[in-house]
Amino acid sequence: MIIDCHGHYTTAPEPHQLFREAQLEAYRSGKPLPEVPHISDDQIRESVEQNQLRLLRERDADMTVFSPRASAMAHHLGDRTVSEQWTMACNNLIKRVVDLYPDYFIGVCQLPQSPGVSIEHSIAELERTVNELGFVGCNLNPDPSGGHWTSDPLTDRSWYPFFEKMVELDVPAMIHVSGSCNHNFHATGAHYINADTTAFMQFLEGNLFKDFPDLRFIIPHGGGAVPYHWGRYRGLADMLKQPPLAEHVMKNVFFDTCVYHQPGIDLLFKVIDIDNILFGSEMVGAVRGIDPETGQYFDDTKRYVDALNLSTEDHYKVYEGNARRIYPRLNKALEARGK
Amino acid sequence: MIIDCHGHYTTAPEPHQLFREAQLEAYRSGKPLPEVPHISDDQIRESVEQNQLRLLRERDADMTVFSPRASAMAHHLGDRTVSEQWTMACNNLIKRVVDLYPDYFIGVCQLPQSPGVSIEHSIAELERTVNELGFVGCNLNPDPSGGHWTSDPLTDRSWYPFFEKMVELDVPAMIHVSGSCNHNFHATGAHYINADTTAFMQFLEGNLFKDFPDLRFIIPHGGGAVPYHWGRYRGLADMLKQPPLAEHVMKNVFFDTCVYHQPGIDLLFKVIDIDNILFGSEMVGAVRGIDPETGQYFDDTKRYVDALNLSTEDHYKVYEGNARRIYPRLNKALEARGK
Repeated sequence: MIIDCHGHYTTAPEPHQLFREAQLEAYRSGKPLPEVPHISDDQIRESVEQNQLRLLRERDADMTVFSPRASAMAHHLGDRTVSEQWTMACNNLIKRVVDLYPDYFIGVCQLPQSPGVSIEHSIAELERTVNELGFVGCNLNPDPSGGHWTSDPLTDRSWYPFFEKMVELDVPAMIHVSGSCNHNFHATGAHYINADTTAFMQFLEGNLFKDFPDLRFIIPHGGGAVPYHWGRYRGLADMLKQPPLAEHVMKNVFFDTCVYHQPGIDLLFKVIDIDNILFGSEMVGAVRGIDPETGQYFDDTKRYVDALNLSTEDHYKVYEGNARRIYPRLNKALEARGK
Repeated sequence: MIIDCHGHYTTAPEPHQLFREAQLEAYRSGKPLPEVPHISDDQIRESVEQNQLRLLRERDADMTVFSPRASAMAHHLGDRTVSEQWTMACNNLIKRVVDLYPDYFIGVCQLPQSPGVSIEHSIAELERTVNELGFVGCNLNPDPSGGHWTSDPLTDRSWYPFFEKMVELDVPAMIHVSGSCNHNFHATGAHYINADTTAFMQFLEGNLFKDFPDLRFIIPHGGGAVPYHWGRYRGLADMLKQPPLAEHVMKNVFFDTCVYHQPGIDLLFKVIDIDNILFGSEMVGAVRGIDPETGQYFDDTKRYVDALNLSTEDHYKVYEGNARRIYPRLNKALEARGK
């Protein structure tokens, strides 16, 4: 099987986005929030079949771990109630996609984070989506302020109640920021990559995984800048008198393959252990065009991974085995179907 | 010649650091700022000969483009007057090093930036250090707030008066943040690398080099995350309907080789044009230890570059020619000495 661990519903039907705009407008003008609109099965089918599902088939992949559009989470807009309503609408829509195409998609949830609001407030939605909707993980935003970085590092104890619930439910989190309201940071060109790098360095500095040996995080976009600067991070661990990265961080942290050119993928597989790499593409996402140098989509990361000519064992790990291990609920769902 | 374009005076004599502490203490308690202490030639010699100069010789390099310690610029501490006094003290100390070892060091200045203070305020110190002290460039901090990113992107017109002066003086700037007072960002492990990535993306989004075709920036630490995600940035330029990076950004932006392992250097040279790469090590800097995998210093980047077995022409560009071109005042100083 080929499992893509990183897909967002970037093509959700228009009424969903119009609802969001109306919701934020109501919030701004102090009116009651609008009701979540009905979206038909046909609208969902149309939005997915022409996009993610078409590309999944064209690229010979089998399944996508699917979550709401990351850039639209926008935890910095509105307040806690607005974030909660929007989050539930987004997660319920993912559940609709999964129900229509259970062989192709499995759900990962957005969380109702909001700047200054305790992460404990997000526990209920994690439980609801995992226990009631059958989701297998969550996207955790390390910066709900949208580029102002006003919250505490992920190693701070204020995050612990949420991590305890993740461990209890046995679900991983992908660390994924949303849009940026800081005009210094382009969302997908700077904020995303910076957040990946920042989260890794927080884990390096802290000792989170001593307290949570079973906690698992996926750092997307190939781990931000980390593999390119792997020597720097190994050296910083040494200078900060931390254990080697292999035991200090890399038992709990995994990188996806959302790196949009061959030399980047080559580097990733050269420096990062095969057990820590999950296939991902983030299609249809940040970079949707065709690379004039190759004639192929930039985000067709399967081509780059295939070009590595991995051994059968490594091929299995990157495309399937690691995902089954890191998302045990995905594994159970597949096993229940005889896969 | 082997020219290291990225060295900071990280080993400045103790009285210099004690002065800084006294200065900040005076600022906090509302007292007059202390006077800059006298530091003897012997103190300077000792601080340099056992560190940068020893390593320069051991590593068979000839010269370092030398600037004040980046993490100690700390533009976010004190106010404009504090920053100005500290900056002049730091730059004058660099001048002392250069005067003692003119064959080994040439100066690049720190700027008296301060959050909320116009960059125009830094023009006088740039002129002083270039025209009076013989410096050949400057370090420009894109985030004087120290990790809160409260200023405008580098493409904003508020920076233009300073860029006009850079062009007039024909000096480049290395884009280099300082310490972080945002507890999310470790200085050398997150803030530095994020700033590099952020600056590049600002240039990609904007059209600064249409207005300043002769402006030149060095993005240190191997360009942050950029070369690893080169496909992403090529794809983002396409999505944002900007020209290809080669003409839109890379006529004006250069990366150093401060990437502390072989696979990272291999990638840098694979994806970035040789005309855009300058040898740099940032020794004695962020990562001072010995890599247990190689038995060599992490920051001995010359070993990684030498291992590439570059052609004679490319070797010359990376180690000398590009630096002479990008820092014309360095070139003139060398030519005046018959080099």
